[in-house]
Amino acid sequence: MYPESIKNLVESFKYLPGIGEKTAERLAFSILELEDEQISMFSESIKEVKEKIHKCKECNTLTDDELCFVCNDPTRDSKILCVVEDTKSVFLFEKLGMFHGKYHVLDGLISPLEGINPEDIGLSKLLDRINKEKFEEIIFAFKPSIEGETTALYIKKILEDMSIRITRLASGVPIGADMEYVDSLTLERAIKDRKDI
Amino acid sequence: MYPESIKNLVESFKYLPGIGEKTAERLAFSILELEDEQISMFSESIKEVKEKIHKCKECNTLTDDELCFVCNDPTRDSKILCVVEDTKSVFLFEKLGMFHGKYHVLDGLISPLEGINPEDIGLSKLLDRINKEKFEEIIFAFKPSIEGETTALYIKKILEDMSIRITRLASGVPIGADMEYVDSLTLERAIKDRKDI
Repeated sequence: MYPESIKNLVESFKYLPGIGEKTAERLAFSILELEDEQISMFSESIKEVKEKIHKCKECNTLTDDELCFVCNDPTRDSKILCVVEDTKSVFLFEKLGMFHGKYHVLDGLISPLEGINPEDIGLSKLLDRINKEKFEEIIFAFKPSIEGETTALYIKKILEDMSIRITRLASGVPIGADMEYVDSLTLERAIKDRKDI
Repeated sequence: MYPESIKNLVESFKYLPGIGEKTAERLAFSILELEDEQISMFSESIKEVKEKIHKCKECNTLTDDELCFVCNDPTRDSKILCVVEDTKSVFLFEKLGMFHGKYHVLDGLISPLEGINPEDIGLSKLLDRINKEKFEEIIFAFKPSIEGETTALYIKKILEDMSIRITRLASGVPIGADMEYVDSLTLERAIKDRKDI
């Protein structure tokens, strides 16, 4: 029913996570409304992103250079390392702009349930780096979940004998949240980690 | 902060309606996860769709041919014409598969508030067609709104002297809807247009 090229475009949008038939159709038709330069930029950037983007040699952050913008920056504090589960987290922290150390991006988190084992998430590259560079603190900035907890504890165990401070992000009630909508696990953590005022 | 090609891709996704910064970033990163063939199909289809798609010579439905698949189909009932506000509506009806007449796609609806006047929505092509082809019924299948109503009444007035049956889609309570969530205009229409059982 759809002309071939519209059908292909709808199919393409459906490759993306969270985009179903209806949204794909809506987006495909909206492409027809774009200016010619927007069309070519869109089309080009899809092709280019896969060709040009790869992992930073040092820390795995996605980059179009040999080293990412953080590893390339000599002003960063090289005594503190923030370990994250994906490149998106790096950009999240960088937008905040309050962390001035280095990053290391794992290939996800350990998840025995999904068959993702310690050897699948690129730990050896991280451990090599920790052995070579002299970090004073390592922050685990994983999402608060069983996988995040498991991964943090697993790495902590390996680093036990090294005199490095190991920390994780604070968990608790989000600022501005309504108490009645805070889930019980979060509330439990908030009570356990309560702070003197 | 983002590598150039990721930044361009995020910007491109933001051209699309309903896609903000966060969603654009999520989609851009998900492009990196696609297979090579998916990438090239995506990139190609964006470029192709604008090059190949244009309006059907007869009815304005978007097509990659001279005539659209409906106008090209000799089995369609050429006595009944369904006038719609955009090509999407054609595909919506075709998916239902219960309408077997012809279509005519306007360039939107009359909207004095937005400065869209009768001469802006391609009425002359529709009227030429109605004068040439011998339709027995014309259905206005616009969205139920002031613009839809205005456009339908405007065209009806012009066709007044021709002996053509003119109809519009029924409005009323949607099947399966909770009565308490039905808006008052819809309920008003449902009472006015009530049916004997």
